[in-house]
Amino acid sequence: MSEIYVGVDLGGTNIKIGCFNSELRLINKTAVATEADMGAEAVVENIGTTIAEVLGAADISMDKITAAGLGAPGPANYKAGLIIQCCNLPKLKNVPIRRMLSDRLGCPVVFDNDANVACWGEFAVGAGRDVENMVFFTLGTGIGGGIICDGELVQGCDGNGAELGHIIIHPGGRQCGCGQKGCLGTYASASWTARRVLEAIKEGAKSSLQNILEENGEVTCEDVFEHSKAGDGLAKEITDGTAEAIGIVCISILHVQEPQRIVFAGEMIAAGDFLLDKIRYYFDKHIWKIKKESVEICFAALGADAGIIGAAGLAIHARQQGKL
Amino acid sequence: MSEIYVGVDLGGTNIKIGCFNSELRLINKTAVATEADMGAEAVVENIGTTIAEVLGAADISMDKITAAGLGAPGPANYKAGLIIQCCNLPKLKNVPIRRMLSDRLGCPVVFDNDANVACWGEFAVGAGRDVENMVFFTLGTGIGGGIICDGELVQGCDGNGAELGHIIIHPGGRQCGCGQKGCLGTYASASWTARRVLEAIKEGAKSSLQNILEENGEVTCEDVFEHSKAGDGLAKEITDGTAEAIGIVCISILHVQEPQRIVFAGEMIAAGDFLLDKIRYYFDKHIWKIKKESVEICFAALGADAGIIGAAGLAIHARQQGKL
Repeated sequence: MSEIYVGVDLGGTNIKIGCFNSELRLINKTAVATEADMGAEAVVENIGTTIAEVLGAADISMDKITAAGLGAPGPANYKAGLIIQCCNLPKLKNVPIRRMLSDRLGCPVVFDNDANVACWGEFAVGAGRDVENMVFFTLGTGIGGGIICDGELVQGCDGNGAELGHIIIHPGGRQCGCGQKGCLGTYASASWTARRVLEAIKEGAKSSLQNILEENGEVTCEDVFEHSKAGDGLAKEITDGTAEAIGIVCISILHVQEPQRIVFAGEMIAAGDFLLDKIRYYFDKHIWKIKKESVEICFAALGADAGIIGAAGLAIHARQQGKL
Repeated sequence: MSEIYVGVDLGGTNIKIGCFNSELRLINKTAVATEADMGAEAVVENIGTTIAEVLGAADISMDKITAAGLGAPGPANYKAGLIIQCCNLPKLKNVPIRRMLSDRLGCPVVFDNDANVACWGEFAVGAGRDVENMVFFTLGTGIGGGIICDGELVQGCDGNGAELGHIIIHPGGRQCGCGQKGCLGTYASASWTARRVLEAIKEGAKSSLQNILEENGEVTCEDVFEHSKAGDGLAKEITDGTAEAIGIVCISILHVQEPQRIVFAGEMIAAGDFLLDKIRYYFDKHIWKIKKESVEICFAALGADAGIIGAAGLAIHARQQGKL
């Protein structure tokens, strides 16, 4: 076992960690609570200790690590290795996370956006493993993205490329937390799909979701999809709005990147073909007619492991390119 | 003079041709009428004869050409070297243009979208020569685009990437000739800027442009900008709509590519800082607040020669990469 690579997926709630061989085969993995309120040093120490445990369980010592990859939510200055300010990790401000982790592990670390590393995982060994041009969306509480162009991640000048949830689809539309109006995320994320139901009910719309709201005190995106499947009119209207917004952004991003495949990941894809068919329907409805498009629209293949696989995969890729 | 490269910019009206040395220095150039209604063979023969003349005037024989680059309007299958169907060149259908030109010239030919080759020209020696990530718009009768990501053109799987005029900014909006509704081009191109004035006048809006319409039988985008500068209310409203649409797409494309620079070319930039300041104003107004953006928004530097420079430059680049 000559080379060992570690993938770290740093989220607001959990840190997922996996160790891999140089062919990106998983050796061992685990997840621990992030405890981001303890500060950056504690988070890095937590990552280091957990990696030692994961490797130890496979009889591998820390000094066998060739390189590590770290994915964390944006925006950040990925190229400089800095977390500047992050909604999900509020205590981590102006933290040179790449250098800190590199010092702790005694190996080089590549650092990228959490959606970018998941995108790389799907590209390397998942839903995009047989294409060279791919666009990737994470459909969750918010919407993230990743882009593979001719076999490389689109990182942008500071590493903040592919923030696809902040493409503006309705100028002057809903107020996004980012400060813009009409971002894709404010129409099609899980949280906004649920919020749009609450708005409609408040305005007097009738729906079977009112019972859920009274029972649970809230409505989730999952509830909306379920009631849509069951035939509720409002739930169907909101679900279609979500799928239409996603389908329209797929068209715009097709005209930017012309990918062979558009891949969706994240909690919302639990809805299955019900959602995917609607996205494809609206894509077909609105796409131009001057040229037939053959882009495939499908779901991701790796589930929650995409982040650790992609983070380790990026470290392997950087090493193969002589960048580490 | 060891290596000679030729750049060809094939448009609906004119063919521009330039010959260059291996450092992309112009040796000689010319332009001839396209005469596309004579068919593909005649167009290719016309290109060949004109190149012989351009080279002959500089005492260079045709067999000295190392490689040529050809730019033509899309959509096409650039990777396969095929013009499939093109609004500006209606007689050229399913034409293997790259092979035909390569046979005529006796050298390898690279083939790309006209806006992509102009983008490459600006990147190589123009407004983007000192950056690695750049987005390029041509603002003319229609809107085209090009993208440089980490020093390479974004071509997409068939070479139809960066069709930025067909990004959808108002879902369900104006009917574009491509079959989509609400494309950027239908708000911000020169032709639509003028059309939006005519629509407003028809609906009863008052404007100093009514005199132009009566005198000339039409209103041009240039007229709209001039009357806006002179203080006409409707002209200002329409001009601001054009600049706002462009500014909003700059935001969306920033979130996709995170370029260091966004560059505008095409006939509309004759309006100068008057237009550029408005685009910057709307970009600043609508951009997110969670991170300060330092992207530069500026005009192209090469004028009408960008196409021939970029086409020859792409041929040089392909050869340097060992692809020719």
